Amino acid sequence: MNINWAERMSCMENPAVKAILAITQRSDVISFAGGLPSARAFPVEGLAAAFAAVLNEQGAAALQYGISEGYEPLRAWVADRAGRQGIRCTAANVLIGNGSQQIIDLIARTMLDPGDYVALENPTYLSAVQVFKGAQARFLPIPLDQEGMRVDILAEQIKKVRPKFIYVNPTFQNPTGVTMTVERRRQLAQLAAEHEIPVIEDNPYGELRYSGEPLPAVKSFPGGDWVIYAGTVSKIVAPGLRVGWAIASETIVDKLATAKQLTDVLTNSLTQRALHRFVTEQELDQHIAMIVKQYRQQRDVMLAAMEEHFPSGVTWTVPDGGMFIWVTLPATINTNDLLPVAIEEEKVAYVPGTPFHADDSGYNTMRLNFSNSTPDLIRTGVARLGALFKRHLK
Amino acid sequence: MNINWAERMSCMENPAVKAILAITQRSDVISFAGGLPSARAFPVEGLAAAFAAVLNEQGAAALQYGISEGYEPLRAWVADRAGRQGIRCTAANVLIGNGSQQIIDLIARTMLDPGDYVALENPTYLSAVQVFKGAQARFLPIPLDQEGMRVDILAEQIKKVRPKFIYVNPTFQNPTGVTMTVERRRQLAQLAAEHEIPVIEDNPYGELRYSGEPLPAVKSFPGGDWVIYAGTVSKIVAPGLRVGWAIASETIVDKLATAKQLTDVLTNSLTQRALHRFVTEQELDQHIAMIVKQYRQQRDVMLAAMEEHFPSGVTWTVPDGGMFIWVTLPATINTNDLLPVAIEEEKVAYVPGTPFHADDSGYNTMRLNFSNSTPDLIRTGVARLGALFKRHLK
Repeated sequence: MNINWAERMSCMENPAVKAILAITQRSDVISFAGGLPSARAFPVEGLAAAFAAVLNEQGAAALQYGISEGYEPLRAWVADRAGRQGIRCTAANVLIGNGSQQIIDLIARTMLDPGDYVALENPTYLSAVQVFKGAQARFLPIPLDQEGMRVDILAEQIKKVRPKFIYVNPTFQNPTGVTMTVERRRQLAQLAAEHEIPVIEDNPYGELRYSGEPLPAVKSFPGGDWVIYAGTVSKIVAPGLRVGWAIASETIVDKLATAKQLTDVLTNSLTQRALHRFVTEQELDQHIAMIVKQYRQQRDVMLAAMEEHFPSGVTWTVPDGGMFIWVTLPATINTNDLLPVAIEEEKVAYVPGTPFHADDSGYNTMRLNFSNSTPDLIRTGVARLGALFKRHLK
Repeated sequence: MNINWAERMSCMENPAVKAILAITQRSDVISFAGGLPSARAFPVEGLAAAFAAVLNEQGAAALQYGISEGYEPLRAWVADRAGRQGIRCTAANVLIGNGSQQIIDLIARTMLDPGDYVALENPTYLSAVQVFKGAQARFLPIPLDQEGMRVDILAEQIKKVRPKFIYVNPTFQNPTGVTMTVERRRQLAQLAAEHEIPVIEDNPYGELRYSGEPLPAVKSFPGGDWVIYAGTVSKIVAPGLRVGWAIASETIVDKLATAKQLTDVLTNSLTQRALHRFVTEQELDQHIAMIVKQYRQQRDVMLAAMEEHFPSGVTWTVPDGGMFIWVTLPATINTNDLLPVAIEEEKVAYVPGTPFHADDSGYNTMRLNFSNSTPDLIRTGVARLGALFKRHLK
């Protein structure tokens, strides 16, 4: 069977990533490769109560079709909670999708024609890079430092090539863990408005802060009308529920809803209602505090173990939140080549840095996840990585 | 705010359809316009038990990420049940999506480049037409008669222009209610294999049969390897759960999974597991028999009322199942123009036939839905339509 697939498929697929993820799944391996939240962090009982209550009280209404924008009370809750980050909006500015991955995809579909440019942090979220590649986009990769995306370099770049939009993950960035400073946020919003270029502010981890003070969203600054904010419950409630959202101008919400309607009509009605029940009637903040306490300990254990076991010449970020630490090795190490060795010899896995780079650079970097391993496994796994690095840096 | 949207957006949007659907929503109107299942047909208690059991017994596992292809036991159930239609397959041939709408969309994304041709019944499912338009496809509209798509005309057409795939809704077709005969099914599968052109067999209504004998799927005939079958629980359990599936060769499932992963990672884990619980432990066939009994009565009431109230010169299909009856009026009537009159003067709504036609023909046709109105409302609404037709045919 020989099928003539669409051209975008050759851009969308990355066999290297598939192969990487496959080998990191071995059950005898300590994996820092995934991006999974801890199953211990899921509010199973609270959700059970919410689903039961919604089916009992709302019955058939919770099982019928609904509008593509999403369940209005849930949209209102999203709008209200966004106020904590300084975003002023109403339910009319919110569209519910199947996780924030769908929000990124809907934005790509509504905005990108083949050959269009996307500006993004280099490195950035791997699956966003793949979505944009699938939309046959080209890239303006912008470096980031400890203060986040280099907005000054972005400003220079967009004078030369105008991107269709700017994609950023400003808070506890995936993969680096870096958080964009207030000043850079302000500059980015201003730059977007000045050039009339939309910004996608992807913020799946923002509520998982272990140190430092919460920062206002990029969307909260002057010019924020040009920002489309993407949020999700995947990391604060559960990813299996597949609920995320966009917060944007009504014009943009309307376009996203058109695409959403043809994509899959609407997001699971029952889940939207049960989730609304859960977040409004149960103690969500208390639940998040429990997750934060757990992940903070895991982060601290990982950082301490890295101090203890990683040889000199290896550097890493110290994230204030999120799920990832970013490691940079001396230029003599290629983490793509090292991965099979790490798995075979040390039974430990990570994600090599290259696929996070839209320009395929970063061969001497890697991402480590600390949310989905116990402190004991973290200590053991980091010690193994340290031993591996020492052998290969000799 | 002036955003430069992707080209596909100008193809995807149909303001006429939006306007039609908006005016059919008026609460004082008897609406035969929607395609909603009856809320009385939803197994609220059975689903409540299934969700409770899954959360209680599987806990966190039901809330975590999973593979893009879907929950393996649910895929195995789909494969097994497809055997009733003569389809031989395993879980490896199944991909779970958010309703069969997402299956159609994933197929369009993986196969269609701008300018590609799609062969389809004329008329056919409105939202499929819009998905293909959004993919910037062109059309080979193939007429259908009482035996379904004119496969002989299709065979002639594809000699001249090769379509990327053939989209059919062979059983209780939306919008006509027509069912493709066994002989045409056989011919279609053979034609597809002979020319190596995939067929999309979209079958959302197949289990809702009120008269006649069940027919084997197009995919069950020789050549069926070239058929991608799309199914859903929207009409036999509930649409708000957003669970549908593709059944196809493993090569195709693999491509669809790649697109699915970037689109929204996976379908709601908890819902997939609860649905699996429901369909395997509760009496699904008994539940479907209850729906069939209800809808059969509604169909019969609508057909009898049409006999009684519609003037001569008006013709309609007599469907053996599904949710729709297709009405053809004399050529002097334009159903697009008549709709506002129907709503204002008679407080009754339908969907005009034009948007179901990829070639924008069918101005004197309309679709009536009988699944979502009680027998009393059906009698009243059809009488109103009859009065309207009589006035306008004088």
